Amino acid sequence: MDESLKVSLRPVRRKQKTPTSGVTAARGFLASGLHCGIRRDRADLALVTSDRPASAAAVFTTNRVQAAPILLSRENLRISGGHARAIVVNSGNANACTGEPGLLAARRTVDETARLLEVPPEQILVASTGVIGVPLPVSRIVAALPRAVSSLSPAGGRSAAEAILTTDTRTKLSARTVRTSCGTYVVGAMAKGSGMIHPNMATTLAFVTTDAAVSPAILQRSLERAVEVSFNRITVDGDTSTNDMVAVLAGGASGIGVCEGGAPLFEEALTGVLTDLAKEVARDGEGATKLVTIEVSGAACDADALQVARTVARSLLVKTAIHGADANWGRIVAAAGSAGVDVAPEAMKISFDHVEVLSPGYVSSFSEEEARRVLEKEEITVRIELGKGSGRSVLWTCDLGHGYIDINASYRT
Amino acid sequence: MDESLKVSLRPVRRKQKTPTSGVTAARGFLASGLHCGIRRDRADLALVTSDRPASAAAVFTTNRVQAAPILLSRENLRISGGHARAIVVNSGNANACTGEPGLLAARRTVDETARLLEVPPEQILVASTGVIGVPLPVSRIVAALPRAVSSLSPAGGRSAAEAILTTDTRTKLSARTVRTSCGTYVVGAMAKGSGMIHPNMATTLAFVTTDAAVSPAILQRSLERAVEVSFNRITVDGDTSTNDMVAVLAGGASGIGVCEGGAPLFEEALTGVLTDLAKEVARDGEGATKLVTIEVSGAACDADALQVARTVARSLLVKTAIHGADANWGRIVAAAGSAGVDVAPEAMKISFDHVEVLSPGYVSSFSEEEARRVLEKEEITVRIELGKGSGRSVLWTCDLGHGYIDINASYRT
Repeated sequence: MDESLKVSLRPVRRKQKTPTSGVTAARGFLASGLHCGIRRDRADLALVTSDRPASAAAVFTTNRVQAAPILLSRENLRISGGHARAIVVNSGNANACTGEPGLLAARRTVDETARLLEVPPEQILVASTGVIGVPLPVSRIVAALPRAVSSLSPAGGRSAAEAILTTDTRTKLSARTVRTSCGTYVVGAMAKGSGMIHPNMATTLAFVTTDAAVSPAILQRSLERAVEVSFNRITVDGDTSTNDMVAVLAGGASGIGVCEGGAPLFEEALTGVLTDLAKEVARDGEGATKLVTIEVSGAACDADALQVARTVARSLLVKTAIHGADANWGRIVAAAGSAGVDVAPEAMKISFDHVEVLSPGYVSSFSEEEARRVLEKEEITVRIELGKGSGRSVLWTCDLGHGYIDINASYRT
Repeated sequence: MDESLKVSLRPVRRKQKTPTSGVTAARGFLASGLHCGIRRDRADLALVTSDRPASAAAVFTTNRVQAAPILLSRENLRISGGHARAIVVNSGNANACTGEPGLLAARRTVDETARLLEVPPEQILVASTGVIGVPLPVSRIVAALPRAVSSLSPAGGRSAAEAILTTDTRTKLSARTVRTSCGTYVVGAMAKGSGMIHPNMATTLAFVTTDAAVSPAILQRSLERAVEVSFNRITVDGDTSTNDMVAVLAGGASGIGVCEGGAPLFEEALTGVLTDLAKEVARDGEGATKLVTIEVSGAACDADALQVARTVARSLLVKTAIHGADANWGRIVAAAGSAGVDVAPEAMKISFDHVEVLSPGYVSSFSEEEARRVLEKEEITVRIELGKGSGRSVLWTCDLGHGYIDINASYRT
């Protein structure tokens, strides 16, 4: 992994300022984002296209309740044998729990996009995000699609990234350039996500494009591995969405092919952009004021470390204490103890950044003032050393504050 | 089960007004509660005694990190073969993650109590609740114990119930009288609990006394079964405490023995008082404004129903929506779908009290006004019918509001 994949306190946000970030960073891809009328006055329709048939791969939510666009995108990928020409996304409405009419609406979106782009419908991926259980006003999407097509441009990557947002406070873009002996290719991506975020699944929406040529099989395998250590390592509120999807399109416009030998390099770049975005989602968690990195080491195995990290990251008591800049390490020990793995509290070591608040043998003597200064920062790393073995894991979450309640006590109404 | 054990909208709180409620409702038990100086200006030391050797049983937290009093009470029960004469409890300090000094402090509390009561130390149960990781100021407890002993009285049940509280806003008391052909006996109890509450364990602190004569074996079995459908069916924040303990003492002062044949009647009463208290804990959840009953029916089996109920009850999105009186049934469907059991969303039916907000086939036509009126009440039942089979379960939780953040962002400081 390159430097940027390591747990870093460098603000990832800065990456968004590079004009080459996002889904149009890679050659051969255009995008647009506009207002079609599902949301009151925010962009709500995004289109991403490849100038040639692209290999495609995706991972989907593990929720048993799956939105219509999830069902249809999965079917299309199967029929097309892992190929796609475009991704069409609406925000403001999840098209979930909408039954047969919802499926027809998703299909109509796909068919109309395919007709306008003159490509087979099975080469269109479709995604939705927003409120559950409300019929999708598909006619507004259909009416706006010609405009979405005519406004496709390389600069449209940013508009597309805006159009897929819901309660997010900012766009989430990333890109990596990969240098090979034959030349360079780019992996770029956008994501949305702020609430209903929980690890161990393909969380939220993220779309990746690359101008490398990659077979559908290598693409799918690389995506699954990259998602496992990026989007599957974040949690905001412990709720799993019905609409999660991470998709990647590989067009090949760079002329560089990724074969088995080159796959690690590609996977590294893919992991890089997805980790950037996953951290951005955690940082932009509903009501969040802090990005919190949970690093667990010294576990009996990596799986144990991950389980402890997940339990600590999901603990409301830990998240509220961090919100209040309270170095309440007892809550971290209690959460670790309830993770269902063997931990020995007397062997534990806990730090907030460089401030060790608990040393083995329950020794705890630290400057409250110094701990508070660390916990008041916008990025904090919680290090938990279990003293059992060499298992380690890292996970990203956020604090829990009043903003979460404000947003979610009246989201629908 | 008697009427009061059914899911009821009758305010359980009223029970607290009966003077015979709590741990001194049963004959042969005395209690006291006072301020020993661990907390600034609230009672923080409770003592409950039996006038004769009582059978004793207990269940303890499943957290791998266990507080010193948990370790010691477990040991004492083992050594005494399930007998106890007294329970001593402090609030304001959990005596958890305190290492060897913590264990010595718990032992000193026990030894001093035993000395004053002139009973063997292994017949003392000890419990603590409060902040984790701070040395227990045991000298304050020891200094106050003579006063705790001298102020023991039947009326002290209420003082004891006050002294075990932490962030609770009210005392939690209950009692049941059991009529048998030989006469009557009483089961009375007190509990504390407001945060760090999560099902599937002995949650929080609860102490039960009865003047029935029950063998330790029947007592332990009845307690485990009663806890399973009461305290193991509540959640406030999903965090599992290091100090949970539910203990029951059976003194026998009523002269009525509970043999195998009478155990169901006893277990019913025990379940009754523990369910009262468990619901009170959920109602008094940190920052909560509503008691929410989650009833799941129509699951493939009871275990599936419980799993769905747990996932819905733990969903922050569901809890915040209910806080905001927003009939956002989509979040309930999404939570049910992520419970890890087979659910068919198109077969689901969801009601808030009598207002059906989702009917099978994704039919949803209800009066928002009427739904809001229901959701603005202080007690709400969410009914989820899965349409799969006859499995059912019930669970209690609360809404999630700003109060939770207020309390927990600065609990320690």
